Amino acid sequence: MSIRLGIMGYGNLGRGVEVALQDAPDMELVAVFTRRDPSSVKILTENIPVVSVSEVENWKDKIDVMILCGGSATDLPEMTPQYAKMFTVVDSFDTHARIPEHFANVDAAAKAAGTIGVISCGWDPGMFSLMRVYANAILPDGKDYTFWGKGVSQGHSDAIRRIAGVKNAKQYTIPVDSALEAVRSGKNPELTTRQKHTRECFVVLEDGADAAKVEKEIKEMPNYFADYDTTVHFISEEELLTNHAGLAHGGFVFRTGKTGVNKEHNHVIEYSLKLDSNPEFTTSVLVCIARAAYRMRQEGQTGCKTILDIPPAYLSPVSGEELRAHML
Amino acid sequence: MSIRLGIMGYGNLGRGVEVALQDAPDMELVAVFTRRDPSSVKILTENIPVVSVSEVENWKDKIDVMILCGGSATDLPEMTPQYAKMFTVVDSFDTHARIPEHFANVDAAAKAAGTIGVISCGWDPGMFSLMRVYANAILPDGKDYTFWGKGVSQGHSDAIRRIAGVKNAKQYTIPVDSALEAVRSGKNPELTTRQKHTRECFVVLEDGADAAKVEKEIKEMPNYFADYDTTVHFISEEELLTNHAGLAHGGFVFRTGKTGVNKEHNHVIEYSLKLDSNPEFTTSVLVCIARAAYRMRQEGQTGCKTILDIPPAYLSPVSGEELRAHML
Repeated sequence: MSIRLGIMGYGNLGRGVEVALQDAPDMELVAVFTRRDPSSVKILTENIPVVSVSEVENWKDKIDVMILCGGSATDLPEMTPQYAKMFTVVDSFDTHARIPEHFANVDAAAKAAGTIGVISCGWDPGMFSLMRVYANAILPDGKDYTFWGKGVSQGHSDAIRRIAGVKNAKQYTIPVDSALEAVRSGKNPELTTRQKHTRECFVVLEDGADAAKVEKEIKEMPNYFADYDTTVHFISEEELLTNHAGLAHGGFVFRTGKTGVNKEHNHVIEYSLKLDSNPEFTTSVLVCIARAAYRMRQEGQTGCKTILDIPPAYLSPVSGEELRAHML
Repeated sequence: MSIRLGIMGYGNLGRGVEVALQDAPDMELVAVFTRRDPSSVKILTENIPVVSVSEVENWKDKIDVMILCGGSATDLPEMTPQYAKMFTVVDSFDTHARIPEHFANVDAAAKAAGTIGVISCGWDPGMFSLMRVYANAILPDGKDYTFWGKGVSQGHSDAIRRIAGVKNAKQYTIPVDSALEAVRSGKNPELTTRQKHTRECFVVLEDGADAAKVEKEIKEMPNYFADYDTTVHFISEEELLTNHAGLAHGGFVFRTGKTGVNKEHNHVIEYSLKLDSNPEFTTSVLVCIARAAYRMRQEGQTGCKTILDIPPAYLSPVSGEELRAHML
């Protein structure tokens, strides 16, 4: 019997989940839920209903896991506890600083309802978190490094767009090669913010805007740009839409550590991702976490979980015997 | 209260466990067991007894987890089921082809005794297996690549030593850079055995041995060398002991895969290890798996497990709250 899946929200993430499900033979899409008028939402899969979110309660017994495809800023803090009252849910909440609060809210809702809510699944938080936890456990005497990019940072792009005179903008976060190499070599460098990443901005100005003033404002923006080497390119809207519409991203997680009687042995653990589509990779993680959530719920577990609480084998459609015979 | 640990066997691995325990504040070494005369075994830690293996049964209630530091060829297939009858045990059994059989033997013994046996912990099998399972679950439509090295292969070194006229030898397995780059670029290359790794041999001849004959015999040895580009260096025993005594190793696990409506997006997941000491990294894994085994046993679980069955957070001495606040 297939695991019956629902998708809540049909933007980049919702569509990504729908596409990822094509490679999940043990799962079946049952319905897509939307806050919009369902008749206005055209999905890729044929013969699957698009349903108004107002009717979601009627689907309680028809869906095993609901994947919540909302944004972290305002949607998920509300949605995940709310829907955990009805369904086992999975989300990609990625505001690191607010994870403990989100965890507590989802945990209370899920425990009361006898469901599971797996939060913060994707690559960071998600796979990168896993790598940090494994590597810290193995090498307790060591140092962590995380680099992001090359990829568009939504937050930084938004910050540029809020500047007067800016019509549109994309900002790429780029790891500094020499910093990567220094870490990779096991030198345990102390790296400043500026030494780890550069920021490259592609900006479309409003008619008559003052380019020099905008560039200065970007480069001096505290927190976002002031601590980085930032380059600003002014381009046409057409060029922005043509050349900077991609959703590629990625990054690197390192831990370097020492072992030995006199700490004479160095070790370098490196994990990296190069992703053509940030949202599709995230939703590929969400889908296999949904499989794990279903299994944990079948075992009788309830409450809020993260990827750190899930036995790795639960993410795989392959049996334990097969995993041991072919992947261990 | 500390987790009480025993070490069974005091070679490279046993010593590595002892050293790794210095960085595990929640664990305490209780005793080291040996098949040798205990009075002949000098360990690093003061005031810890070295005990004859014949007395191990008396320690049943004094040890929470026994780490089994034997070899995979002959020791562990016997030792792990045997000691799982008395203790929760952890081993580093690494004969991939025999894992299903070993699992079945340990599972039967551990279930009957109400203990846990975690087998095949280290880096391959171990962390590399984990990476394969996670990456396959996330990118079901993709391709796996594993590279080993640069590092000494014990099996290949032994094979050279069995040749008539060879006094001593070390063999390094070396991944081919251009193959690594091709995989890393997302080109999904089809790679032959020869294209993935080269083999470099350092050989000490017996007096009067025929170097040309030995070199030919090495290079044509089926399975071990015939399918590889192999170079052979003849050196003195002194040089071998001085320059080739290191225990460095490492490797790379890749998965490249596609997502998207038309599979238009490529993704590359890469995990790599650069280890100055292969046995010390392995034992660092064993120690945090011992922590996890203890926790699973406290929950009432029994039977044989692998790293694929263990929630990642169980490996860490840090609480769930702390992990979520700082590492997720």
